[in-house]
Amino acid sequence: MTDTTIEHAHSIDKLARKAAENGPVCVGLDTTPAYIPENILASFEHPSIAVLAYNRAIIERITRDAACCKVQIAYYEALGLAGLKTYSETLRLVRQAGLPVIADIKRGDIADTAKAYAKAHLSHGADFEADIITVNPYMGFDTLEPFLDYTDVNRSDVKNENGAKGLFVLLRTSNKGMSDIEGQILRDGRHVFELTGDALQNIAAHYSGTQCALSPVGAVVGCTEAQDAAQIRDRFSNIFFLIPGYGAQGGDANIAKILLKNPLAASGGAELRYGGVVNSSRGILCAWKTDNSLTAKREKNALTLDDIADAALRATQKAKAELE
Amino acid sequence: MTDTTIEHAHSIDKLARKAAENGPVCVGLDTTPAYIPENILASFEHPSIAVLAYNRAIIERITRDAACCKVQIAYYEALGLAGLKTYSETLRLVRQAGLPVIADIKRGDIADTAKAYAKAHLSHGADFEADIITVNPYMGFDTLEPFLDYTDVNRSDVKNENGAKGLFVLLRTSNKGMSDIEGQILRDGRHVFELTGDALQNIAAHYSGTQCALSPVGAVVGCTEAQDAAQIRDRFSNIFFLIPGYGAQGGDANIAKILLKNPLAASGGAELRYGGVVNSSRGILCAWKTDNSLTAKREKNALTLDDIADAALRATQKAKAELE
Repeated sequence: MTDTTIEHAHSIDKLARKAAENGPVCVGLDTTPAYIPENILASFEHPSIAVLAYNRAIIERITRDAACCKVQIAYYEALGLAGLKTYSETLRLVRQAGLPVIADIKRGDIADTAKAYAKAHLSHGADFEADIITVNPYMGFDTLEPFLDYTDVNRSDVKNENGAKGLFVLLRTSNKGMSDIEGQILRDGRHVFELTGDALQNIAAHYSGTQCALSPVGAVVGCTEAQDAAQIRDRFSNIFFLIPGYGAQGGDANIAKILLKNPLAASGGAELRYGGVVNSSRGILCAWKTDNSLTAKREKNALTLDDIADAALRATQKAKAELE
Repeated sequence: MTDTTIEHAHSIDKLARKAAENGPVCVGLDTTPAYIPENILASFEHPSIAVLAYNRAIIERITRDAACCKVQIAYYEALGLAGLKTYSETLRLVRQAGLPVIADIKRGDIADTAKAYAKAHLSHGADFEADIITVNPYMGFDTLEPFLDYTDVNRSDVKNENGAKGLFVLLRTSNKGMSDIEGQILRDGRHVFELTGDALQNIAAHYSGTQCALSPVGAVVGCTEAQDAAQIRDRFSNIFFLIPGYGAQGGDANIAKILLKNPLAASGGAELRYGGVVNSSRGILCAWKTDNSLTAKREKNALTLDDIADAALRATQKAKAELE
């Protein structure tokens, strides 16, 4: 019997529900000391401690207006061991705040190694335990299997008090270089990213996952290409999208809105209102830099973490309204 | 003027030189507690400390018979924060032993994020500083740029006391799934991995790198496919290969020997004898399990770290002889 209580729900179910409840904004905690006002940074012993305090202030403020947080591990790795301690504590803070946390780690390796990555980032009680992780499929679909084990609610060996885990596999990313490999056309006429998406749909069919009709395996699709957004949305109808590129990366809200639609919504009830979440990192983390109500404090170098969090909340609400 | 003393040599030069001196074996420190005999594991306070002691014993023993060590970060991430401390110290031990250290991290992300990864793993004095890292090119070639900056000896902002850094970009990996994307055929007739390799050759031309004729950007090519090994070796003649798949993964020494050849050797002198290094992880780390001279001790659960290191050395020397 599958456990179907809310606490034990699949991470993808929880995410879809939060998006319906709070709106589809994913707050990207790609926090680097360079984003923190100097007076605040200087008041902490170590930049990694300042980053943690910065994250905490923002997380506590956005819990009713965000679907989830995404934590980009690279910025924490750049601060070394101390940074990874902050990373670990940030993941915990997000979950304590009742939001699903996506670890943006884009790992991908041969199966034995992927098993170690899966243990590191998906296993219960691990320092780096997240609800959902991003995964790079380049080395082949066998490299996804160890991660997929954690997405299956019926796999007792990896069963998790925090519910089965989710994945977002890179499909079409938001950077210009996505045309180099992801956007190449194969001999059979498909783009490489379409081949990946088709494989994800086949794979998902073998894993028993979510309570809703969504696949436990999501995909990363940037909102930077207009011409085929609707087509991608329709082709991968049961796949939940993590949508980067909005805001600072130049991605368009109108494209994001197309990708956010849930083709299954008609049959699935209110909690399936959105078929994705839209990430905004710098636009929220650095909202204090352009927030009009903070001009005076900014000029006096008198900003507080509360001000930062206020600006972050306003930016989150603005994004939410824009994506409505 | 470029600094050309040995200490400041490019990491790829150092690696090529060590391979010529010590033979082409790369010792893969993919160490997990499961590889450590129980009596040894139990004598340490924490598995991560046992892994460090295990690595230290092996590193000290193989310095004259290995070209380098490769450290697979996944196994350390699986042990959480304590594991990453061991990872950091393992990198340091390898370099202290005078061998180049390859961090097998396969990172790859949009440029801003890649910059953070590059800082984490290539910048001087960082907790995770390595000489060479592995990189995943799936998201596009713009994602390589922040790493490439560290490979250029003339980029003063990233100039490093330990010499400019090297990269190994995933080309054709050793797992079965490599056919899923890397091995797909494009509309123009090339395999995806050939497109990547061609791009690497173009990119390398823009970076001033090594003293020898080798590109600062190497590539990962598994020794698991016989039919086109010679063709790949010839096509990417100035690219140094990191060759996984040998031994435990079923890769063949004869294929490895083809990929190890250096097409530039005739014109480049003795230090260009090899155009690659061949990784062996479990075959060396777990050599104690099958080493005949340790049977009695193994049966009595009386193995010491010295025994482990002896077996690892014998396995390294055997691999070296086989690849000669």
